[in-house]
Formats: sequence, C-alpha cells, structure tokens
Amino acid sequence: MLIPRLIERKRDGLPLTGDEWRALVKGYVAGQVPDYQMSALAMAVVWRGLEPGELAALTEAMLGSGAALDFGDWATPRVDKHSIGGVGDKTSLLLAPMVACLGVAVPMISGRGLGHTGGTLDKLEAIPGFNTRLSLQEAMAQVRKLGVVMLGQTPEICPADRKLYSLRDVTGTVESIPLISASIMSKKLAEGLSGLVLDIKTGSGAFITDPAQSQVLARTMIGIGEAHGCRTIALLTAMDRPLGVACGNALEVIESLEGLQGRGPADMMEVTLALAVEMLLVAGVERDRAIARRRLEETISSGQALQMFARMTEAQGGDPRVVSDYGRLPRAPVIIEYRAVQAGVVTDIPPRKIGHAIIALGGGRSRTEDTIDPSVGFMIPAKPGDRVRRGDVLAVIHARTDADAERARTALDEAIVIGDTASPLPLVSHRVTAGGVEALAPSARLSST
Amino acid sequence: MLIPRLIERKRDGLPLTGDEWRALVKGYVAGQVPDYQMSALAMAVVWRGLEPGELAALTEAMLGSGAALDFGDWATPRVDKHSIGGVGDKTSLLLAPMVACLGVAVPMISGRGLGHTGGTLDKLEAIPGFNTRLSLQEAMAQVRKLGVVMLGQTPEICPADRKLYSLRDVTGTVESIPLISASIMSKKLAEGLSGLVLDIKTGSGAFITDPAQSQVLARTMIGIGEAHGCRTIALLTAMDRPLGVACGNALEVIESLEGLQGRGPADMMEVTLALAVEMLLVAGVERDRAIARRRLEETISSGQALQMFARMTEAQGGDPRVVSDYGRLPRAPVIIEYRAVQAGVVTDIPPRKIGHAIIALGGGRSRTEDTIDPSVGFMIPAKPGDRVRRGDVLAVIHARTDADAERARTALDEAIVIGDTASPLPLVSHRVTAGGVEALAPSARLSST
Repeated sequence: MLIPRLIERKRDGLPLTGDEWRALVKGYVAGQVPDYQMSALAMAVVWRGLEPGELAALTEAMLGSGAALDFGDWATPRVDKHSIGGVGDKTSLLLAPMVACLGVAVPMISGRGLGHTGGTLDKLEAIPGFNTRLSLQEAMAQVRKLGVVMLGQTPEICPADRKLYSLRDVTGTVESIPLISASIMSKKLAEGLSGLVLDIKTGSGAFITDPAQSQVLARTMIGIGEAHGCRTIALLTAMDRPLGVACGNALEVIESLEGLQGRGPADMMEVTLALAVEMLLVAGVERDRAIARRRLEETISSGQALQMFARMTEAQGGDPRVVSDYGRLPRAPVIIEYRAVQAGVVTDIPPRKIGHAIIALGGGRSRTEDTIDPSVGFMIPAKPGDRVRRGDVLAVIHARTDADAERARTALDEAIVIGDTASPLPLVSHRVTAGGVEALAPSARLSST
Repeated sequence: MLIPRLIERKRDGLPLTGDEWRALVKGYVAGQVPDYQMSALAMAVVWRGLEPGELAALTEAMLGSGAALDFGDWATPRVDKHSIGGVGDKTSLLLAPMVACLGVAVPMISGRGLGHTGGTLDKLEAIPGFNTRLSLQEAMAQVRKLGVVMLGQTPEICPADRKLYSLRDVTGTVESIPLISASIMSKKLAEGLSGLVLDIKTGSGAFITDPAQSQVLARTMIGIGEAHGCRTIALLTAMDRPLGVACGNALEVIESLEGLQGRGPADMMEVTLALAVEMLLVAGVERDRAIARRRLEETISSGQALQMFARMTEAQGGDPRVVSDYGRLPRAPVIIEYRAVQAGVVTDIPPRKIGHAIIALGGGRSRTEDTIDPSVGFMIPAKPGDRVRRGDVLAVIHARTDADAERARTALDEAIVIGDTASPLPLVSHRVTAGGVEALAPSARLSST
C-alpha cells in the first residue's frame, strides 16, 4: 500500500476501500504512516468527503484501535445522549439521572469545553471531589450497580481518534462532517450502547451554523450508529442563544439541581425532556412519547432523579450534600447586576460572545492546558424577544475581581442586543432518524420567549 | 502568526497575505513550521489555488531562501529554456550552444528524468566525464567565459523549494499548477535571467494532458517571471508522440550532435528552432523571427554551434571528441530491429509507454536513487500518420541483454499502434505571452508526419 497513491485518490475525489482505511488507521497508530501524510489526507477528506463505506470503515478502525465498555449479555438497555456543543447546555446533568431512574443504564463519556462551548466534565468538576477520571472497569462497575456514570475519555478508548484529533486540531482539518462524525461515533460506540440520542445544535452559536449542514451531520452520524446496531436518532435544537439562564460551570450545576427539583427554566427543561424522551424510545423501554415524558417528569416530582444525582456524585467521590446545599459549590467573590441601558426588545444574545466572555472571566479555556475557575460566569434571565425597560436586570455577572466584572460588563454591552424585533429559532426544530428528517409541528415547538 | 488559522483560511478559499507566505516559508525552512502543517496547507492549495499576489510572495520567499547566480552589472543578456518534461526531448542540448553563439548567455540549470520523462542531466552524463555538479561560482565563471553552462540543481539554490518538493512528493500534493509554477520559477529566477522561454508540452505524454490547463500553467509561470522582471514566454508543443527519433540518453546525445551538424529529424529541429527563436527575442538581441531563425541555422551550417557544444563539454570535464566520434559514447550490446507485424497507418506512439519501456530497459528511474544505464533506449523513426507495410522497421531496440530486448519488443507491440488514421497534434500549437494566447497559424504549424 503506497500512502501517496491513496492520498492522491482521495484528492481526486475517488473513494478508498475499507481495507485501505483500516490499514491507514492501523499504520498511523503504529507510527508507520507519518503525521505529514495523515494531515494531507485529512485535508483531502475535508475537500472531498467520505462515502458511507469509507466512513463506516474509518469509524470501525478507530473504534477497533482501543478498548470499549463491554457489558456482555447484560439485558439492561444502555443509552447515551451526545451534544455537538453549546453555551448554557447542562441537559446531560439532568437527563442522565432521570433516564437512569427508569431502568435504562447511562454510561456517559463526556468532554471538556472547547472553543466557545462548555463541557460536561468541567461542570461536574465544579462539585467538590467529583472524579470524572474513572477507568473503564470502574465505569462499568458503577453502571451495573447504579445505572449511571459520567466520566471523561480514557486513554484506552479510540487511541487512533485521539492521535488523529490532535493532528486535525493543528492542521485546519477539524471542520469536516465525516471526520467529526467518525470521531464522535467511534467514541460513542465504544460505550457499548444499544441506543444513542444526538443533540445537534443549530444557529449562530453552533459549531455548524448552516441548518442544512446540521441535518447532513445528523444523518451521517445516524448512518454510522445504525450500521453498528446502535439505534440512533437526532434532535436539532436551538443554539442561537444560551440554553437556560446559567452560563458557567458551578452556576450551571446549581441550575441543573434546580431543574431536578422542578424549578428549572422552561427552555432548559423542554430540551432536556425532549432528549430524554428519545432516550427512552431508542432504549426500547417506552413507545409513546407522551407517556415517556410523564414518566420522566415523575422522576423529578418524586425526587428520585435528584437522589440519583446525589448517589452518582457520592459514588464518584463528590460531596452529595451539594444537592441541597449550594453553598458547598464554589462561588465567585464579585457578583454584580447588568442592567439594560435602553428600552426595547432583546433581539440577540449570541452564544459565541457569551462563551468567549466566560473564557475571559476564567471560566473556560483558550488552550486545552488552561485551568479554569468553576465559580465564574453569568446568569442571563433575558431571552431574545423579551421586552425590557431601561434599568431592568438582564444578567448577573459572577467574577473573580472587580476588573474582570467590568470587562464582562463591556462584553455584555456587545453581546446583549436591544432593538425592535427578535426571531429566535424554535427550541426543538427537527427530529432526524434513519428514515429521514421530520420537521416538528408548531405545537411541538416551544420558543423560549 | 497561528499556523492552523492560516491553513483554515486557505482551506476556506481565502488568500493569505504576502507577509504570511514569507513567514510560512521562512518558518518551514527553519523547522518551526512542521511538515504536517505544511502538507495540509499544500493540499489546501491543491484544492483552492493561489491568487497572483500569493504566488508571487511564495515564489519570492522560496527564491530568497537560498543563493542565486548573480551577474552584477554584466551587460550580456542571459536566457534559459525550461521544458515541463517529455520523451525524446533533447532540444536543450541543441539550443543552448546555438543561442550562446549569438551573444546571449545561457546559464541552464536542468533536472533529471522523473516519471516517464527524460532529463537533460542524464543525457549530458552519457558523455564520458561530463560533470553537471558544478558550484554556483564555477557555473558563473563558465558562463562569463564561454557563454553557456549546463548544470544540475545546487544545494544553495531554493532550499525551501527542495524541502517542500520532497514533502509534496509523498503527500499527493504535486499536482497543483500554482505550486508547480512557484517551484519551477523560483529555481529559474535563481539563474539571474533576463529572459525565459517555457516549453509547455501538451498531449497524452505531457504531465498535464488537458490543453486548457497547459495554457493556465503557461500563463501562471509567465505571470511570475514578468513580475520579477524576467521576460517570459511559452510555446505549447506536441508531446502526443516522442520528439525526434532517439529515445534514451546516449542515443539522444548522438541525435543532438547530428542536429548540430544539420542532420537532425525535422520535428526535433522545428521545435528546437522555434524555442531558440523565442530565446533570442526575449534576450532582446533580435526582433524579427525570420532573421532570428536564419541566424540560428547559420550557427549550425557554420559549425559554430557544434564547436560550442565541444567547448562546453571540455570545460565541464567531458570528452570533446564525442562530437565527431560517437564510438566514445556508451553503446548497448544488444541491438535489434522492431518490425511492423501488420500493414496500415501508425495511429499512436504514446510517450508514456515509450518512457516506461526505457525505464524497464534500465535507462530511466523508478525511484530517484536508481542508477541508470545511458546506453539503452529506442530509435523510433516511425511517426503517427506514417503508412507502413508488414515487415517495415518501425524501431530499433538498444538493450543490455537479449531478455531485456525481448521485453522491450513486447512493450513496443503495446506502444506502437497500427490502424487506419492518425491525428497528431500540431508540433508547435500556441505562443503564450503576458499579453495572451496566440494560436499559431496553420502555416506556422508543422506536423511531423
């Protein structure tokens, strides 16, 4: 196998065979295929894409490069939810314990914040002692015992993907739907899942801002999942404004705990329930969406979901008392209100600007090696479409210093736009399955405004 | 300067600035920009191309990465001819001494055969003792003294291009008109030229087989040359069949020497004269093509050009007696005739097949580290359009062994196609200048048939 000939074929828009992809991945992990050939090939894939057979082979080869969660013949269905990344998106913290209360195991391997988006691991680690660095053995034991675990990527899972992703990150080859899909799905399939729900963010704050491309991404990932016997569906949800009110790690933990007690913001709860309903359906434990939703709501009203969160926290070394005592979570020393400088309608709260403002406060990373301060961030009750008067509180800034808070105020001057009219995206706009794309009926859409 | 951001810009079809290209090349040579980023960028350039300003900056940066021939205020015009590569193309060996006889210096830095094509250095080295490995100082001294030098690439010239070309060669990023143009032109501009004539081969045996792309290549290189104050023009010439009769290094030297004595094949002489005429024009020593041609023909009829070749050979350590005693050149031990197996019209003699058959005989390289036998090759008097009878001699095979000769016979069975009609390309089809493309009038076209 001459690597330059393979690169040329892909460059010229011709597919490689499954065997060729498998050999490429194997050779790359073994150090026989050098980075400089893999990066040129990755750029050719950004250009030309991958055919379904190539995508399946690449995903399989990356999955096969490492270990996986293996539940053997355990009858309990396992499902996960994966989001493409957003701002204020803490749905994982709610739906994992909720779904686990209903006889469905949730072995959730999450990531850290990247770019302007937040990450589930960073949120969980805002809880004192919470350990997300579990081994695969520890994770499997906890899932079997408790029904839920939330951990980070382990070195054994998909080493090929980790090596390739690091390379893509520094060679301008991240933005490729097939490469993104293979990267995500190889890791998700390593969880030993029977079902997977994808939360594909759309709108200005999504990594992919073109709605048509969002659907292509959804269908691409669904194709990979279904080909591996994992029932996969996707919801397209709004990321043209932050989800919920809290943006920042500890603040989002609090909002999640509020949500698990029935006091969450409407938009956060709506997206959480929509995703959790689909999880029950792909798990095969429920067929009727209305009943699924009612059962999920009962995990909240009964207190079971909150208790499940506390048990998971305790199992992973965290302080379970946080669920009733938010004072045990880190709290920023400087907390100031941000008020409307003029009257009008909130027209836009772009998530990228909010995400970058959180990074500037120290609550996110510019580089992967940065450490973060979990206490900082924003509470932003304002939503696009809200009519506000001059002096109304639009947000609350949580900062380490007065100077940081002032800079954050300036950032919000930029980020919260007041004008005449707003047209926010529907909160949950489409359901994508292997069968096609279904635009959700207006009655099923809930605008957060 | 964040390299991944630059790669992303190019990937997205946006231009980089001249400063960015200069910094990239400088960083690459210094080892600060790693191969894996440069190869991804190169693939993005294959995809997106380069704007004229980018091309100029890249060429200039590669040129500036090394040393150049510097003739100071020497008034003698310097010109060169560069061919994109062909089979049987020995025009350099003729036109360099011819032009040098007319007060124009020719500091010619050539290459070796690559792929199916032959290389001027390999041909010259068929002459016992001929040294093409001169230093820049030696080359400049010889040009000033004799008016002509023919040497190989030196380590001082364009090290950035050498490093980048090696990388492109193994990453599927050779086939890019802007990258090819920058690579060639950076090396040519290092010759300190006042004028340059490009021989852009067209047809099945050319590296670029699409005639429209040939013109794009010509115009791209002309743009670079003119921007650097080097008058540059291109002729598009036929490479749908070998040029001349001899194909193989020593055989081509003999044919060149025959040509310098007025006994060359018509097609070889026509292309040589067409290119040499343009060299006199870009040198500014002649304005009238008919007069230029007559003066060039007189360098042959007077014996001056042959003498110039002998003096150059002697100056570079070669045996000047070869010009009158071909027995001093290496000669293959097995020489057999190849005869037509059927009557008809020669419809095709694809140069790629002939070139690959020469490599199989040991007269070319599959890998750059291969050594070659200069004695082997073919004499192919047959031309597309010739009507032949069964048993006519179409070619003569020069081989090291009987077995090699037999394999070459089988190769010619494949390569020399006899059928009903032929439609060879016009020998010199277009002249391309900074002003545009000129299709040469039918009277100016000379088909070799």
